[in-house]
This record gives sequence, structure tokens and C-alpha cells, in this order.
Amino acid sequence: MSPISLSIDAMGGDAGPEVVVEGLGLFCKQRADVDFILHGQPERIEPLLRQHKLSHRCTIIDHPDVVSMSAKPSSALRKARGTSMWGMIESVKQGDAVAGVSAGNTGALMAMSMLALRKMPGVHRPAMTALWPTLEGRSVVLDVGANLDADADQLVEFAVMGEAYARAVFGIERPTVGLLNIGAEDEKGPDAIKFAGEIMRTRDTGIDFYGYVEGNDISMGVVDVVVTDGFTGNVALKTAEGTARLVSRYVREALTSSLLSKAGAALASSGIRDLRTKLNPSSVNGGVLLGLNGVVVKSHGGADAEGYATAVKLAADLANSHYMEEVSAGLKRVSRLGITPETVE
Amino acid sequence: MSPISLSIDAMGGDAGPEVVVEGLGLFCKQRADVDFILHGQPERIEPLLRQHKLSHRCTIIDHPDVVSMSAKPSSALRKARGTSMWGMIESVKQGDAVAGVSAGNTGALMAMSMLALRKMPGVHRPAMTALWPTLEGRSVVLDVGANLDADADQLVEFAVMGEAYARAVFGIERPTVGLLNIGAEDEKGPDAIKFAGEIMRTRDTGIDFYGYVEGNDISMGVVDVVVTDGFTGNVALKTAEGTARLVSRYVREALTSSLLSKAGAALASSGIRDLRTKLNPSSVNGGVLLGLNGVVVKSHGGADAEGYATAVKLAADLANSHYMEEVSAGLKRVSRLGITPETVE
Repeated sequence: MSPISLSIDAMGGDAGPEVVVEGLGLFCKQRADVDFILHGQPERIEPLLRQHKLSHRCTIIDHPDVVSMSAKPSSALRKARGTSMWGMIESVKQGDAVAGVSAGNTGALMAMSMLALRKMPGVHRPAMTALWPTLEGRSVVLDVGANLDADADQLVEFAVMGEAYARAVFGIERPTVGLLNIGAEDEKGPDAIKFAGEIMRTRDTGIDFYGYVEGNDISMGVVDVVVTDGFTGNVALKTAEGTARLVSRYVREALTSSLLSKAGAALASSGIRDLRTKLNPSSVNGGVLLGLNGVVVKSHGGADAEGYATAVKLAADLANSHYMEEVSAGLKRVSRLGITPETVE
Repeated sequence: MSPISLSIDAMGGDAGPEVVVEGLGLFCKQRADVDFILHGQPERIEPLLRQHKLSHRCTIIDHPDVVSMSAKPSSALRKARGTSMWGMIESVKQGDAVAGVSAGNTGALMAMSMLALRKMPGVHRPAMTALWPTLEGRSVVLDVGANLDADADQLVEFAVMGEAYARAVFGIERPTVGLLNIGAEDEKGPDAIKFAGEIMRTRDTGIDFYGYVEGNDISMGVVDVVVTDGFTGNVALKTAEGTARLVSRYVREALTSSLLSKAGAALASSGIRDLRTKLNPSSVNGGVLLGLNGVVVKSHGGADAEGYATAVKLAADLANSHYMEEVSAGLKRVSRLGITPETVE
């Protein structure tokens, strides 16, 4: 098998190239079939590549500028050229790489990806995904922030994209799809959700539609794909992160509150190690802005090397899948139903 | 101090009068200054009162019917008379009790409370509260489901009501208020939130406005009161419940995964007991539909006796506070600002 190439924004993320290159090193221990095009400042990247013995698998492209983590998307767009993030996306656009990864500024990455890669034919609004740890493994939640809202047609479009994405990433033949709502009955909730639900219940969208799911169903893994608008999805994702952090802190306090507790925790260490693995956000790192002509994976800005490696693996998995062809086919099927007249551009 | 009277829907909740009366028993061990009017089926209630030695503090009013947990609000309203829930609310309305408690069907309880108690002068839309466990203690989140959406004026109204409620329940002089959004910067988010933020930042609403908070800030206890629309609040609340349940299950598995883990857990038992207390949903049980002429507390349908006692304590605390006068004063202050012309009825 000839190696695939991934395009890497080597400068993005809270910790910069150190974590990026260490993450590539971890990934390379698992996979020998991937090469990298690294975008950024050679004087910072080269020594790290030598240190991690990765020089032979990497090409560096010089970009002097870095998008700051706090820059507004509009301002980042104006100064895009010359940045490592823009260079990373350009390599994907030119076909030099099959997919890209950045741990940089999310808003800037979405804006630049939209501008450079453009929307796939049939897509009205791209949607950002999150992988969500559940009782059953992992689920996809989308949109988690690419848009502020979504009408019924856009929710159906998100469902089509999310379903193809789940198949590519989880390898499930027929992922189940649920619409996030505040009740399980058909007549509950805002109009956009009710209309989207009716479309997926009654029309031949090709989607295995479960029905409505509520907030507590996400972590229980009731469906493989949870569809919602970008505002609600973002609030839900961050609320879950906050809750997990609170509970983890309680656990740590409980197991270090006394000498006896500490001794108990030491005895229970193998179980607690499992727990840490399960609660480790690195294991589900990686979001994708679905619906563009090209795959760019967003790694969490604060991800460690292990988390970064997870995001790189996601990019490689997507590059090896038929995800884009499937989205395209799914959108054609939905558009033939004639249910999206008001949003056709 | 002469005793206060609370009105109790003795039949509501997944487990019915057994849990309700046991909960009253637990509450009475802490407080001697409260009497109860119990609404429901005497033949089921009386033996329980005798068993828990509560007969001398309770009056029973006979209502043959029970609102089923799955009834739709509209159908429950049509058949309201004769139910224990309706009777409970009537006692509050007539002034026979200073506040009421039900663990029954939430939608029916909101609909009946609105109909019987009516909105306070100046309130356009009542809002449902939840108490949320945080790193700092507890916060109030509203609206968690009384409405599907909220415009800017309604969000400000929720802030006024939530602030007075937090003062009554937490005893904080100046509770801080945050608007739930998907970014911290002033220009982020949907228009309704931006307008509400601007009103609270620039006008003399009397509110200690913190600014925007994100989902992860809720559990961190960044503010005392989190204001949001009913759809988002309900999703956030249930998402947090699901996440806490998932993490708790991981913890249980980790501490019972091997003999060694079990031994460790036994050694660490005091810490783990603290953890259970902190994760116990009973400790924050109780929601209130704010903005009505009377206080009705909603206990979780699945709450145990301890949780029910917590909800009863919330009702007693609110009855002893100046919460309704404060809401009234706050709404007058806001209405004088002339910012709510489009929603004045």
C-alpha cells in the first residue's frame, strides 16, 4: 500500500509544535502507511522531528505566521495567507494531502476551511461534529457550533452527513440517528425539530431514524448520531465537559481525603487506571467540519500528545473511507425528495 | 412561632404516597414548625401517617383521582378537578397553605399551576428552575422547560426572578447572574441573548450581571444564577444528568473490577461515602415555576424519601422568604426602564 499524506498545522494548539510532533510520533508507532506535510516555522519544527526520529516521514513547508488562539475569525481570514493553518488547508485543497489536522483556533479554522475548500454540492450549511463518550462506546453529535441555529431541512442535512460520518469512523453499517429534543413524543418541541422528525419518519431519506432523544440519552449511547443545531449542541457538549470535570474532581477528592482513602486508592489502582482511561478526553479527541470538499480535523487546543494522535488517526480513517461519496449520495437522495426548496441556493 | 402549613400532593411521583409520607417524616425530624395538608386517597394515606407517627401534624383532604405520570398537560387540565394535584394547588391559592409540593407529572403541574395561580403582575412568562450542584455549592438554572424559547425581554425577566429566588434559597445578598451562551465575547451568540446581555450590562436592572457563561461554567459554579431559554436549559440539565450517571457508573465499575479494587474501595469507604453524598441527586431536588401568585415546588418524580424531604424544605424556605415581594419589585424596576414594550400585555 502506498502511503497516504496528511497535512498538519504544526503551530496550532495551546502548546504549539512540541505537542503536535510528539503526537505524530505516537501515531507513527501504530501506523507506517502515513506521511506528513508539516506547515509552520522550520526552525522550531526541525529539531523536534529529529528528536522524535520523524524527519524521514515529514516534509516541512515554511509559513512564518501563526493564527493566535484568541483571534476573531474575520480578522484571522484577512491575515490568512502566510499562516500555518492556511497552508495546511491549501495542501488539502491542492490534493497534496488527503486530509488535514489543526489544533488551532476553531473559529478561524472553520472560516478558512469554508473559504478554501468550499461546500460540497448539495450542502447548504456545514456542521461541526464532536465524538461523545457513551455507555456503549462513542456517538457523533452535530452541529456543535458551526451555526447558531438550524431549520428542518438543515437538520435533515446534518443527519445525512452525520450518518455517513459515523459509518466511516465507527464502521457501523447502519448507524441510528436521533434528533435532540426535550421530550420523546412526536408533538413535542420547536417546529424545526418536529418538521425534521416528520421528514425522517415518513420519507425515504435512507436514514435509520430512531426518533427524538433527550439530553440524558446522549451519554447513554441510545443512538449513534445525535442531530441538533449548533447553539444547542455547543451548550450540551460544554455542559457535559463541565459535569465530567466536576465529578472527576469529586472522585479525586474522595480517594485522597484521608490516609486510609489513599491506601484504598492505591490498592484499587488498576480499576482507577481503567477509570482514568475512560474519562480521558484524549480518547475521543477530534471534530470535523462536515460538508466541505475536503477533510480537516480539529484537535482540541488543549489536547496532549496522545489526544493529538487520536485526531490524526481520525483524519487517516476518514481519508481511507468513502465518507465524502456517501454524503454526496445521501444529499442527492434527500434533494430528490423535494423537501428543501426554501434553502436551495 | 406559629406553624406554617404546606400543601402536599400525596399521590404524585413514581412511587406514590409511600415515598411522600416517608419524606415528610424525614423533614419533620429537622423541623417542628410545619404542618401539612395532604391531598389524595385517605385509605392509602392514613395508614402511612400512623406508621410514621405524623397524624397529629397532618390534615387529609379526600381526592379520588390521580394525574397519571404520562398524561398530556391538556388532557390533565380537562380532568383536573378531583385530582390530588389540583387539590394541592387549590390549598395554596385559597391561602390555606403558604406553599405546595408535588412529585407528579411536570407538564400537568405547570399547566394547572398557571391556570389556578395565574401569573404575577408584570410577569409575561413563568420559568421553571433547577438547582444545579457545582464546585462552589449550588446554582440556579432557569428556564429548564416551562417555555420552548425566550426573547431578550423574557430572558431579562427570568434573570430578575432567578436572582430573587437565589437570594431566598441560598441567602446570598447579591447573587451573580450569567447568560448561557456559546462564547464569552459580547458579540457572540443569537440576537435574543445579545440584546438581553446589553440590557443587563448597560441599564439599571439592579442585577449583578456577570456576562455570558458557557456550558462548562455551570458546574464550575461561575455564577449563582444561569439564565437561558427553556429548550436549551432542559437539554443542558438532562445532558448533565446523563453525564453524571455515566461517570458514576465508570467509578462503580472501577472500584468493583477486581478483588483488589473491592478491597481498596472498602478501605477508602469514608471518602467514597462523601462522594456518594455529593453525587446524590436528592441533595438538590426541587424545581419551582417562578412568576406565579403562589409557590409550588416540583419534586423529581423518581425522588426517594430523602429527595422528597429536600423539596419540602425548599417549599418551607421559600414560604419563609420575601421572594415574591422581591420579584415584584425587580419586575417593576425593569418595567420602568421601558425595555419591554413589545411583550407588555
